[in-house]
Amino acid sequence: MRTSIATVCLSGGLVEKLHACAAAGFDGVEIMDSDLVAAYESPEEIRALCARLGLRIDLFQPFRDFEGVDELTLLENLRRARAKFEVMQRLGTNMMLLCSNVATATVAEPEVAAEQLGRLADLAAEYGISIAYEALAWGKYVSDYRDAWRIVELADRANLGICLDSFHVLSRGHDPSGIEAIEPDKLFFLQLADAPAFDMDVLSWSRHHRLFPGEGSFDLTGFLSHVLLAGYRGPLSLEVFNDTFRQTDVQRTAAHALRSLRWLSDRTAARNGWEDLQIAVPQPPRAFDFVEIAGEDLAPVEDLLNKLGFSFGGGHRSKPVRLWRAGDAHVILNEQHRAPGTRLAGVGFVVEDAAAAAKRALAIGAPPAFRRTYEGEYPLPAVSAPDGTGVYWNSQSAADSWLVEFQGGESPTAQGNLQGVIDHINLAYPWQEFDEAVLFNTSALALDAAPSADLPGPRGLVRSQVMRTADGAVRLAMNLAPPTAPLQPRHVAVRVSDAIATARQAKGRGLSFLPIPANYYDDLDARFGLDPELIADLRALDLLYDRDESGAFIHFYTPMIGDVFFEIVERVGDYDGYGAANAPVRLAVQRSDGQ
Amino acid sequence: MRTSIATVCLSGGLVEKLHACAAAGFDGVEIMDSDLVAAYESPEEIRALCARLGLRIDLFQPFRDFEGVDELTLLENLRRARAKFEVMQRLGTNMMLLCSNVATATVAEPEVAAEQLGRLADLAAEYGISIAYEALAWGKYVSDYRDAWRIVELADRANLGICLDSFHVLSRGHDPSGIEAIEPDKLFFLQLADAPAFDMDVLSWSRHHRLFPGEGSFDLTGFLSHVLLAGYRGPLSLEVFNDTFRQTDVQRTAAHALRSLRWLSDRTAARNGWEDLQIAVPQPPRAFDFVEIAGEDLAPVEDLLNKLGFSFGGGHRSKPVRLWRAGDAHVILNEQHRAPGTRLAGVGFVVEDAAAAAKRALAIGAPPAFRRTYEGEYPLPAVSAPDGTGVYWNSQSAADSWLVEFQGGESPTAQGNLQGVIDHINLAYPWQEFDEAVLFNTSALALDAAPSADLPGPRGLVRSQVMRTADGAVRLAMNLAPPTAPLQPRHVAVRVSDAIATARQAKGRGLSFLPIPANYYDDLDARFGLDPELIADLRALDLLYDRDESGAFIHFYTPMIGDVFFEIVERVGDYDGYGAANAPVRLAVQRSDGQ
Repeated sequence: MRTSIATVCLSGGLVEKLHACAAAGFDGVEIMDSDLVAAYESPEEIRALCARLGLRIDLFQPFRDFEGVDELTLLENLRRARAKFEVMQRLGTNMMLLCSNVATATVAEPEVAAEQLGRLADLAAEYGISIAYEALAWGKYVSDYRDAWRIVELADRANLGICLDSFHVLSRGHDPSGIEAIEPDKLFFLQLADAPAFDMDVLSWSRHHRLFPGEGSFDLTGFLSHVLLAGYRGPLSLEVFNDTFRQTDVQRTAAHALRSLRWLSDRTAARNGWEDLQIAVPQPPRAFDFVEIAGEDLAPVEDLLNKLGFSFGGGHRSKPVRLWRAGDAHVILNEQHRAPGTRLAGVGFVVEDAAAAAKRALAIGAPPAFRRTYEGEYPLPAVSAPDGTGVYWNSQSAADSWLVEFQGGESPTAQGNLQGVIDHINLAYPWQEFDEAVLFNTSALALDAAPSADLPGPRGLVRSQVMRTADGAVRLAMNLAPPTAPLQPRHVAVRVSDAIATARQAKGRGLSFLPIPANYYDDLDARFGLDPELIADLRALDLLYDRDESGAFIHFYTPMIGDVFFEIVERVGDYDGYGAANAPVRLAVQRSDGQ
Repeated sequence: MRTSIATVCLSGGLVEKLHACAAAGFDGVEIMDSDLVAAYESPEEIRALCARLGLRIDLFQPFRDFEGVDELTLLENLRRARAKFEVMQRLGTNMMLLCSNVATATVAEPEVAAEQLGRLADLAAEYGISIAYEALAWGKYVSDYRDAWRIVELADRANLGICLDSFHVLSRGHDPSGIEAIEPDKLFFLQLADAPAFDMDVLSWSRHHRLFPGEGSFDLTGFLSHVLLAGYRGPLSLEVFNDTFRQTDVQRTAAHALRSLRWLSDRTAARNGWEDLQIAVPQPPRAFDFVEIAGEDLAPVEDLLNKLGFSFGGGHRSKPVRLWRAGDAHVILNEQHRAPGTRLAGVGFVVEDAAAAAKRALAIGAPPAFRRTYEGEYPLPAVSAPDGTGVYWNSQSAADSWLVEFQGGESPTAQGNLQGVIDHINLAYPWQEFDEAVLFNTSALALDAAPSADLPGPRGLVRSQVMRTADGAVRLAMNLAPPTAPLQPRHVAVRVSDAIATARQAKGRGLSFLPIPANYYDDLDARFGLDPELIADLRALDLLYDRDESGAFIHFYTPMIGDVFFEIVERVGDYDGYGAANAPVRLAVQRSDGQ
């Protein structure tokens, strides 16, 4: 399917936007009138630039407040239209978007709107131009695509059809199945936008909070299915007004936008069994394979893991890379990188078909990750997440694949060695990169988004969004930091069977955890009325506790090393959360700790 | 009236918050339970710190989800309450806020809630504690203050009363006049918050978008009038959940918060004729007196003003300060300041009573501005705006006051000299400082807020908010830049009777304006169908044009010098806007200009 994007989705000037759309790989663009008006380049220059870049100008938009008016206003509107048709001719584009009248309409009758649209279409025909009529969700008399279609049917002009926009249909809760009743050759254009499930006025929702497909709550695969089943064969185009994307780097946003379209068309193809349109079967991860921490000097991390009870899993036979493990929780320490600091550099996942997972991620637009593989090493297909973190896939267990490359390790099951698995990884993002990361986790990692929550921290609200597999074996807890706060560190949570014993042993080995205020334990007692012995243990060991109907959660945090720290968690019963109630305390304490 | 503030309004840790509240001058605080829980300091330490700082702990809050439950849950809730009463005793505070149940209530009957609240009050009485019951706007069964009052009446305990929160009453559109029906000794506490007029779910609105009084759309003076007429004599307390204030400097936000309360109590006193509570009569400005531009070397500004047709008004007799004028538009160039760059440093206003204006601003909490006055110089009372801009008031015309201090100027009315007035000043703010600036302009300058608009710029949406006098003689156009964009420059708009002639003369003197794209004029013609001669003039002179039902607007922008530029405007007929339709072009063009 051809892909297109409205220039209003992107930041910057028109020429930059066009270059970014072409670089990302879009087939076409919708040129926003106001972007052209603010550009020094003439329509002829823009036309020639698009031709050189291989971008088709699919649509010129918007023309507003035309129909349902008195005759005098109509004549003035036809004059306005003629001037824009002349600009379109110079641009070399032949389709204009007409939004339903929101301001000047005084006549509600569809027959009048149809007659007036007919006159517009006839004028447009003199210029070889078609009109795609769109019902805006807040249109004065026409706010439902079915009403727009009725008017287009009544007008009955070959060059007059419908533009569908997923936002205008789904935000109003209109049933999209009626799209299939529209004649296929009257479906002139399709605009796609997702949005979060906000309960707010539809105009503000649309102007500020639209998202790319896969980042919001709309059922876009259902919507697109109806449109394609109706026979639409034009481009899939994005029209996303979003306060964030207006500010982010234009090249990066364009690449992000195209990934969202590829994901959507793939998912829609899968839903309908259209195999020829599908990229590859999604591979939800079955487990974490490893996490990779990179830095110049990782001795402090080794000391920390050692005190926590991790066992040394050996050094890599050909690289300055060492393995530490707690049962199935593998932590790879990589000193190849020369960048200063200590950071979470990669995550490995176990999947059914690693090659298919990588192929799919690459086809969706993730950049391949460079990883030097030496003779005889186990190859892991990989890509880069948008923030640069390496993502690796493995169809085998570690023991049957890369684990043998590490030599000289101790027995991981020896007494006193910690046994565990990676429970979740906590990743912090600056606000400009959050939606992009959600899309990557949905599209490339095949994770699902759980409902998000806002956690109050001392520097502002932190939005927390968990993305996970249905069985909970793989969970990524994503944090969106407040704009003015420094980026939070990332952390790896390791699940053990007895967090209290783990804490006691680690303290015995000299590890000091994040110290928790005494007031916290008073509050815990007030909230839960815990067994005095349990409270005493928690208090003595600086442990955090949470409980819900299904079970309980005991956890603690290590100090930070560079931009990384660890969390040890125990899940009692079927507790399925992450101790969100404790996050404000952790954030406050990490801050007082100067971190 | 005593003033108080909830610690949740501010960023940082509890100790920092308390210091900031005391420094700002608050009489008391509401301590948020979660702020205490996250603090290392014991309740006894917090109590002692508050005593030292002279802060009364007016309220401990919130206690949640208590009433309307089954007996087992009630017993558990009483246990929870007892634990918090013990903390409150240690803190030395004797009033607890109880929010109406949002989660666990299963019984709707007010009689049941009353019976259960009675039991809570009896337990609280053992600790000498009172309970202030508040109807949350999204409470499950109790979401209206009148229902909360009915329950409190039914329970009939001396230590059980009502907490009123302006947000919960006004956001639901409940009539606040019913407050006067509540017994005065049952009005235990009052929380005040303003909010913008959003049409969104009330919980998100409350959690993210509350504002300090004077910054939103609620009629808080009406609300507070009802509360005071009902006989409430407790503190006026602020409870404002706002994503921005959670991130801004705690000292600055606390000062800002107190200003909002002072403004509100003053305005309420004025509305009711309570003269003893009123600070001073507001002094809406009658005109701009001058603008002051400061810098190390202002020769480029002088060159620009000269080319625009301003006349030289003379040098100050005792300082490196020079005056340029276009009729009544006075521009003072001040080279006393040694800070590099060129910036808008001050604004002078003509008012009825300058001393009263300054007294009022100082009483509301504006810092006095330091200005050295020499022997025989005309003294102008002054304060600093929150962003540091000097604000000066003058009861006289310039000719009758400070103008005589400038010597050696040319005749301002000589032929060829531009005649004009300052039409408006455009001030840009970073997002953290915008609400504070709105409050200053309302409270200290006695300006009114016009509806705001979002203007699309190449780096994101720019929020534009005009604050003005009713007659339009003084207008400040405030711009809120997108978080990632550099701060926009500020500019001074001078109104003349013939912008085309002014532009032509200035071009003739060698001034080049911001060049406007040709596409803009094609669009202008499409939109308005202008007279070809007018379009030709506009195009040749790089002029911008707008029109509405009342008239037209012709304007142009000078190049920037440092962080300042000028705009020349002509208002034809009764045009009352600012050419907002042209702002996207200006923003795009200034950006391509590397600015």
